[in-house]
Amino acid sequence: MNNNNTNQTFPNNAWYVAAWDAEVGRHLLARTICGQDIVLYRRLDGRAAALADACWHRLVPLSVGSLVGDEVICGYHGLRFNDSGRCTYMPSQETLNPAACVRSYPLQERHRFVWIWPGDPALADPNLIPDLGWFDDPDWAGDGRMTEVESDYRLVIDNLMDLTHETYVHSSSIGNEALAEAPFEPSHGAKTASITRWVLNEEAPPFWAAQLGKPGPVDRWQYIHFLAPAIVVLDVGVAPAGTGAPEGDRSQGVSMWVIHIPTPSTEKTCYYFWCHLRNYRIHDQGLTRRIMDAAGGILREDEDIIEAQQRAINKNPGRDFNNLNIDSGSLWARRRINDMIAEENSTRIHVVSVA
Amino acid sequence: MNNNNTNQTFPNNAWYVAAWDAEVGRHLLARTICGQDIVLYRRLDGRAAALADACWHRLVPLSVGSLVGDEVICGYHGLRFNDSGRCTYMPSQETLNPAACVRSYPLQERHRFVWIWPGDPALADPNLIPDLGWFDDPDWAGDGRMTEVESDYRLVIDNLMDLTHETYVHSSSIGNEALAEAPFEPSHGAKTASITRWVLNEEAPPFWAAQLGKPGPVDRWQYIHFLAPAIVVLDVGVAPAGTGAPEGDRSQGVSMWVIHIPTPSTEKTCYYFWCHLRNYRIHDQGLTRRIMDAAGGILREDEDIIEAQQRAINKNPGRDFNNLNIDSGSLWARRRINDMIAEENSTRIHVVSVA
Amino acid sequence: MNNNNTNQTFPNNAWYVAAWDAEVGRHLLARTICGQDIVLYRRLDGRAAALADACWHRLVPLSVGSLVGDEVICGYHGLRFNDSGRCTYMPSQETLNPAACVRSYPLQERHRFVWIWPGDPALADPNLIPDLGWFDDPDWAGDGRMTEVESDYRLVIDNLMDLTHETYVHSSSIGNEALAEAPFEPSHGAKTASITRWVLNEEAPPFWAAQLGKPGPVDRWQYIHFLAPAIVVLDVGVAPAGTGAPEGDRSQGVSMWVIHIPTPSTEKTCYYFWCHLRNYRIHDQGLTRRIMDAAGGILREDEDIIEAQQRAINKNPGRDFNNLNIDSGSLWARRRINDMIAEENSTRIHVVSVA
Repeated sequence: MNNNNTNQTFPNNAWYVAAWDAEVGRHLLARTICGQDIVLYRRLDGRAAALADACWHRLVPLSVGSLVGDEVICGYHGLRFNDSGRCTYMPSQETLNPAACVRSYPLQERHRFVWIWPGDPALADPNLIPDLGWFDDPDWAGDGRMTEVESDYRLVIDNLMDLTHETYVHSSSIGNEALAEAPFEPSHGAKTASITRWVLNEEAPPFWAAQLGKPGPVDRWQYIHFLAPAIVVLDVGVAPAGTGAPEGDRSQGVSMWVIHIPTPSTEKTCYYFWCHLRNYRIHDQGLTRRIMDAAGGILREDEDIIEAQQRAINKNPGRDFNNLNIDSGSLWARRRINDMIAEENSTRIHVVSVA
Repeated sequence: MNNNNTNQTFPNNAWYVAAWDAEVGRHLLARTICGQDIVLYRRLDGRAAALADACWHRLVPLSVGSLVGDEVICGYHGLRFNDSGRCTYMPSQETLNPAACVRSYPLQERHRFVWIWPGDPALADPNLIPDLGWFDDPDWAGDGRMTEVESDYRLVIDNLMDLTHETYVHSSSIGNEALAEAPFEPSHGAKTASITRWVLNEEAPPFWAAQLGKPGPVDRWQYIHFLAPAIVVLDVGVAPAGTGAPEGDRSQGVSMWVIHIPTPSTEKTCYYFWCHLRNYRIHDQGLTRRIMDAAGGILREDEDIIEAQQRAINKNPGRDFNNLNIDSGSLWARRRINDMIAEENSTRIHVVSVA
Repeated sequence: MNNNNTNQTFPNNAWYVAAWDAEVGRHLLARTICGQDIVLYRRLDGRAAALADACWHRLVPLSVGSLVGDEVICGYHGLRFNDSGRCTYMPSQETLNPAACVRSYPLQERHRFVWIWPGDPALADPNLIPDLGWFDDPDWAGDGRMTEVESDYRLVIDNLMDLTHETYVHSSSIGNEALAEAPFEPSHGAKTASITRWVLNEEAPPFWAAQLGKPGPVDRWQYIHFLAPAIVVLDVGVAPAGTGAPEGDRSQGVSMWVIHIPTPSTEKTCYYFWCHLRNYRIHDQGLTRRIMDAAGGILREDEDIIEAQQRAINKNPGRDFNNLNIDSGSLWARRRINDMIAEENSTRIHVVSVA
């Protein structure tokens, strides 16, 4: 596998999480999504909007300007743009150049996230947003954060598609030797790749032992689901050994849906949105906070090693990766990403030129 | 307008302000003017000198050496250069290589500034230094500073050639809505471009209200004069409305000459010399200081937005600027700069090669 | 002389000091030698080992992993590599890919240093390690340090091959005017270049006056020996004038062997190992410390000017150096380096490809 593909590393025709819903408000929020500088804000009616973050006139970032009503005012010469990107005011002149507009981006709010479509707007079908319904399900509770990672978003996906690394990177919390040795089963679909792994009748690592709150060996499961191009959903948990979890009865155990969304910012940086949802003690807000804090520490371990890997890639532009059996999940995930890129380029004639 | 001209951005055959006179003394001052590393100092007789800031021998900057008498001694191996750049001493050898010299630069002191000519010395006519005679006129008083700006010097000129931006960038001090709406008149000459704007019978913004010290509406004037390649002189002020300022009687008002000199350091950085001269309360040194402090704050607002603009230009190398009516002044200024560059290149055969 | 040869700046087929012996222990030490990332450690039996610092699997630096027994464990997925670089464990799979190995480097410990051969291992003859026998001689005592310098290692060699610079760079400690004026004699061999300089019957500079501890004028000697590609050994000292030092009787004086080893890290950075060995008061550990502290200060002066020189070179890629008589030593040293590079490239067919 070539680690240093100078070709496109992400499809543009896809919905990407640009922000947590609560991050977008009555102020100008600058984000770079898939290499495009974007300014996000909420209109007076509460709906979110996204414009290209560069004034039509002189390229000054609109995000250093101000938000008045539903319009963004450039902080340099006062040009105003409405939420569809059209210029509605130019200083000292009455006739507005009809070409004076900045790009506006298709935007959807769903599952606590603000989603942006950086590619061809004509293809931005809201039905393509993946179903992360646990966010809207009252039986599941939890919260998450966003961290900026200095790496290709695909290195985050690689990291998640094989959780063997928990044994080495997270040995003090969620990893142990049993996990690295457990067999796993890969599968994949048109836009998905999955890995399933069970560790039966082993001691739980510290994090999971604390969640379960019961002594004794456990059966532990990891279902890893990749949704192209940039979502990995983990269905993970433990139950006391022999209480039927492998057969489908998780009632004695604890379950989590862990959502990982590494949105590409540039080719070598990403915004990493993550969230832990659980189906136990769902009203314990203190537990939500403790899980977030623990998860933040665990993910910092991942980010450290991924950023070290990215630096090594940058220093060795000609070097390929080598693969192990454990990489089958990440290989399928990358194939699904490459499929989307290839399809996008085969239909490039339909894609609106992005300045 | 192409914002990212990879061609030459400044003429070399021009006088540029390299330093305030008081900055140059009995020490070695390093400056980079038009991409050329230069070391400035004063001789024992008080005259300033400018040499290329790289030892002929091994390129070590002379500015990290020492000044002895009228000569600069390299801090590495002790080579000495006199103020015409000729090597007068080499260690451990008696015969000096006659080719051993560093470039010396034509230099003039005038109007409190040290001016350097980075191009062909044969063309360095002191009469080409623009007349900034207010500095030498006892009826005008004031002072200024120098700040280093991370931008193409032309972005500073663009900023000054339309003061509409005061409304948005400096809304708390010198800008207000009336200004952005006021009509303006452009004009231009062989090496100049000018904009004239009057705002009649409007409330003065806070800075000017404080200078005038009288209540009530004012007539406000802005005469912007660009002198190619890198000087903008503002003739600005306010007078109580109806006291005859538009007709030429400024006696009831307050006037300033504001000198802005963004000398190109590299293609993307400049030294920004500025000064505010006034014709009222000229012996009030405290007022001089308060105006400088206020001006420093206002200019920091400009520099912030200009540096944001430069970063946006760097990120979008292919993007052109778009123009508004208010840009006629800056467009004429850039034409005058381009004329000088074109003329210089058409006569390149006369230009001394610059190593 | 071209200062900016984009060709190879160092031979790979040579022994280079990678570390002081005491720096390498039961931990993972990352060094970049001749552009190659290397991880150093000691095996349980005390012998040092050196591997390429990039996991075969995904390029993660092995130095961020852990050392267990004689093996390095990758901190990401747990691959293990023995001290010959062979992979001995892969997670979740029993069959190891026989190609799974990282490069191991020929390594020798001698004269208190760990030496690495970054080129063709077949040519790594330990007999090619230069003889620095004073380290092992009980009549000589002293210690040194390593500092990282932001320059081409050859600029450090240039600096040492002419000690005239002591007069200007080190005027407060070891330099004086007499030195810059003293004649010198160059000589050279197949892999060496030497400079000899005597200053007779002159006042000693402060450092040497303190070492000698006797008043009066001195005879001072500097024998500079370059051993290609990256060692400079100085035989320096002073004796009371007229006590026979020029004729070979140094018994009334004080002598030092000063070892300078600037190992190339990248083309523009190096590790600078240095050590001062003396034959007087050899059991005075406080003196060892004071000499090291003084030497550290003197070398910091060298490093400052060399790094300024490197920055000037970087800014002036087309500029050549000019040469003085005093540069004959450095010119010969650079010729010896270029000879090694040329020889290496003429036999490139034998050189193992380095990824």
